[in-house]
Amino acid sequence: MKLGRMNHIGYAVPDMAAALDHWRNVMGATAVHDEIVMEEMGLKIVFVDTPTASGIDGTQVELIQPIREGTAVGSFLEKNPLGGQHHVCFEVPDIAVAREYFEGLGKRILGPTRIGAHGTSIFFVHPKDMQGMLTEIMETPKDGAAH
Amino acid sequence: MKLGRMNHIGYAVPDMAAALDHWRNVMGATAVHDEIVMEEMGLKIVFVDTPTASGIDGTQVELIQPIREGTAVGSFLEKNPLGGQHHVCFEVPDIAVAREYFEGLGKRILGPTRIGAHGTSIFFVHPKDMQGMLTEIMETPKDGAAH
Repeated sequence: MKLGRMNHIGYAVPDMAAALDHWRNVMGATAVHDEIVMEEMGLKIVFVDTPTASGIDGTQVELIQPIREGTAVGSFLEKNPLGGQHHVCFEVPDIAVAREYFEGLGKRILGPTRIGAHGTSIFFVHPKDMQGMLTEIMETPKDGAAH
Repeated sequence: MKLGRMNHIGYAVPDMAAALDHWRNVMGATAVHDEIVMEEMGLKIVFVDTPTASGIDGTQVELIQPIREGTAVGSFLEKNPLGGQHHVCFEVPDIAVAREYFEGLGKRILGPTRIGAHGTSIFFVHPKDMQGMLTEIMETPKDGAAH
């Protein structure tokens, strides 16, 4: 596999309104996307763009808050009540090829490939097989856009 | 403040050789920088570039391993023996202005401003004041290069 773009880093947040206030009014983010509710996952998500010199390709910050009991992000927040860094996401050109690759290396994949918050296919690889990093693998959107 | 470029995300690693093997041979990184030893901090560091469509502006992964007892990264590794996500770094145009800004907001800054691994001035803001994220603020290199 060839390393792909770092699409986003995911942060668990206990309070989306407080997190958005932090990103807008402390960190000075100006490009904050609309909230996405992922009912099946029990999560709500907001992507925050980070700028670059070229104006494109900025790695996004993904703010994630559980909307019900029993989510993996909720378990993370029980251990980290302030919130914190939860996962990192890299793009690949073909999700099926990538899944076969990680499986072939004996890496534990968490659940089936599914549609992620950016509308393309994703899966997660277990942090214990990834140097302690919960790693999301995401198929690059067809239009080549970062988000 | 206006949000700056996400320069890098920092990962604590217990074994640099194993981490480099992971990034090169599992994740497929091709641009791995030379190791930097920061004697005063008691750390060794390797930056890994991540690619982008434009070929520039990729957020780097910073691998960090303690080289002596008593470092903050060492304490992190005691709690996370596999390694894991340790901090995130954003660029600012002027480090003194940024420090005054965060101080003015009552954010706890960890120690004096000092020269970081990229050769420009940096400081760290306490995760308890930053939504659980240990946040490094780094002055953009004068040549505008990402690294």
